[in-house]
Amino acid sequence: MKPGKRIGVAVCGLGNVGAETARLLRVRKSELSARLGAPLDLRWVVSRRAAATARTLGLPASVRRAKTPERALRDPSVDVVVELFGGLDAARRLVRAAFAAGKHVVTANKHLVSERFEELDRAARRAGVGFVYEAAVAGGIPIIGAIRDGLAANRVERVSGIFNGTTNYILSKMAHDGCEMGSALAEAQRLGMAERDPTMDLNGSDTTHKIAILGSMLSGRWVEPRKVPREGIERIEAEDILFAASRLGRTVRLIGTVAPSGDGGSVEAHVQPTLIPLEHPLAAVHGGYNAILVQASSAEDLMFYGKGAGPGPTASAVLADVLAVARGDAGRAPRPTRGRAKISPESPAPYFLKLRVADVPGALSAITGKLGKEGVSIAQIYQNERGARWVPVMILTHKTTRERLDRARAAILALKTVSRAHSLLRLLPDGA
Amino acid sequence: MKPGKRIGVAVCGLGNVGAETARLLRVRKSELSARLGAPLDLRWVVSRRAAATARTLGLPASVRRAKTPERALRDPSVDVVVELFGGLDAARRLVRAAFAAGKHVVTANKHLVSERFEELDRAARRAGVGFVYEAAVAGGIPIIGAIRDGLAANRVERVSGIFNGTTNYILSKMAHDGCEMGSALAEAQRLGMAERDPTMDLNGSDTTHKIAILGSMLSGRWVEPRKVPREGIERIEAEDILFAASRLGRTVRLIGTVAPSGDGGSVEAHVQPTLIPLEHPLAAVHGGYNAILVQASSAEDLMFYGKGAGPGPTASAVLADVLAVARGDAGRAPRPTRGRAKISPESPAPYFLKLRVADVPGALSAITGKLGKEGVSIAQIYQNERGARWVPVMILTHKTTRERLDRARAAILALKTVSRAHSLLRLLPDGA
Repeated sequence: MKPGKRIGVAVCGLGNVGAETARLLRVRKSELSARLGAPLDLRWVVSRRAAATARTLGLPASVRRAKTPERALRDPSVDVVVELFGGLDAARRLVRAAFAAGKHVVTANKHLVSERFEELDRAARRAGVGFVYEAAVAGGIPIIGAIRDGLAANRVERVSGIFNGTTNYILSKMAHDGCEMGSALAEAQRLGMAERDPTMDLNGSDTTHKIAILGSMLSGRWVEPRKVPREGIERIEAEDILFAASRLGRTVRLIGTVAPSGDGGSVEAHVQPTLIPLEHPLAAVHGGYNAILVQASSAEDLMFYGKGAGPGPTASAVLADVLAVARGDAGRAPRPTRGRAKISPESPAPYFLKLRVADVPGALSAITGKLGKEGVSIAQIYQNERGARWVPVMILTHKTTRERLDRARAAILALKTVSRAHSLLRLLPDGA
Repeated sequence: MKPGKRIGVAVCGLGNVGAETARLLRVRKSELSARLGAPLDLRWVVSRRAAATARTLGLPASVRRAKTPERALRDPSVDVVVELFGGLDAARRLVRAAFAAGKHVVTANKHLVSERFEELDRAARRAGVGFVYEAAVAGGIPIIGAIRDGLAANRVERVSGIFNGTTNYILSKMAHDGCEMGSALAEAQRLGMAERDPTMDLNGSDTTHKIAILGSMLSGRWVEPRKVPREGIERIEAEDILFAASRLGRTVRLIGTVAPSGDGGSVEAHVQPTLIPLEHPLAAVHGGYNAILVQASSAEDLMFYGKGAGPGPTASAVLADVLAVARGDAGRAPRPTRGRAKISPESPAPYFLKLRVADVPGALSAITGKLGKEGVSIAQIYQNERGARWVPVMILTHKTTRERLDRARAAILALKTVSRAHSLLRLLPDGA
């Protein structure tokens, strides 16, 4: 856009994030305009409850209200459309219509961006407009900007970390209180830290979306979220966390990882509950925080820590993108140009496997036999209680591949003397 | 600069950082040019040992060499001068000459930037060129870019953290090994983590420089480094760290803090060894790392962690600035426009005071009397050993002001029954 040109914004969707974005566009208008070097105007709010929210926020009459986005998209004074509808279909229609109307788009919708990244990126480029999504990856943490600008001189070799505040709250709470997942989840829901249906958080899907977006940025190839192997936290029990802390000096975090291979041929990507040494910076990330480790060729190891969700942090990222797109910086993020990514298996690591085993002779040797058959060697094995119907057995393996481990796990769980209930945790390998 | 225009760079100073910057400009030329959208050429290397370093790096003949910068500054193909001379006088002359020649300047020289910020910023603006210094604050951590762009929609209310890797290495080492400062420093020097003369690191000056630069960016007023109250780590003993860990659940970090007052009238700024709760993210920052906490109005609490020094991390930041200035983004960092800052005293906090007291009747009551006279109330007091000539006494105060504490400390140290040797540590207040 022309330097100094007045920039008009339409905020579409007035949930918590949308309302906060609209509010900040009003109350920080002079600072934002000064930062941009041009007036930044909130022109439209679009939502079924636009009129009521506009009243609550005290928006002046110059900010127009509509239940649907058509008129805002036809308004030539609108330069940037902020998509905060959420979900997939309505959001996708809005974004495509905005591109068709020649508007730049800012979105916080990680589900949409990760599922439709290639389609929307191409559509934006055909339309000659910006499509930016800083808020889609880690809320208020400016990780995309840091990779795009601050680390522009680096090859980013690996990004891994905690991308989901809900699961991090639950895992921290279980570690701190020694409680089971059910009560930690109930507390998270009570505090508004977990949705009523927390499936996408607990099963790792939400983290997969963010990993896919970062993987596409870093690798030069489209990473499809459904191809990223993931394991959720649903099966983790308090005794696993207690055991990890007391015997292994580690704690559990749900870690998403993406690492383009050196030759650009494939991308290691996975989402996995991971045992982190207690002295590792990621182990100090408690409650609803996110933290992202970046391994960069020159800057070396970095960590970015902050609120990954919530109205203020998300609106902060949305507005940073509004300023970037208004300045014409939108095209600067690294983007895929080389087709879809091949996802490579996770790098070898030690694993923790907690089984429930019948207290009968030969049960343990059947298990160790299955591991041995797949070439998985055991570093430590613990069996503390006796006399219960199912006795918990904790196995720590030496470094092995996920393929071998999954084959051994399937064979073990097929044994009559082993319950299906189990936990599998990756140990963060040295130097990762 | 015109989009697509070829950009020429002169690297002045070929120490570790300069040589690495020149090397990266060569080996990552195609990626850097792609990121910039224009060819980025290393045109000159300037150093007394330019010829030898150019040979070592295998620079082609197209990169010209000189012992002094005059010819590079006259070369119209040079757009950006990278100042890596270090020190004050020669660096300042180079920067002024570059401005006069119409060249943009990128520097990693925190001493120069903080001491001459106002003068050089004005000179750059008069010359209509960019003056950027991402590498001057935290090496490879892109904190200035994050504040400028990622947090552009926020009021940044407080920045505090670990800005000096040398002292952090020493404090971590003392905590981990239980050793005294002398041996931790010797080890740091052996590893190249401390300079032969570590005074500017140990006494907090280096941290003060970085705090002054950030304070000027955030407050809109020039923060002069010499006006920032600082306390170094020189007096800290192993027993203080041990006591803090075992009795207070805290560890020591050298913390620089800057917090503009809400009304913009003054800036709280100080550099101070600080007792951090062991579960706090800053306590998990070990060895030569830096970590910076940012409290922002919308994004809330953030932490940026990484290598604050070293050739790779510093060159990474220098090159990010070269790209930014080449894109014309240099003017975007918030900058002072309202004169010099008034430094306000540090916010009230509890303090830890370790004294050495003669083991004679009445000695303790004289100390508590002096504290009481200044209105400093005691939360806890410990005196473990007896029988030595000087007995260590550890005092933990309730929240108090630094002024009261300093007056009480002066009165206590004037007592005949108290040694001059002591340690004073601030306790990180709740929510800071």
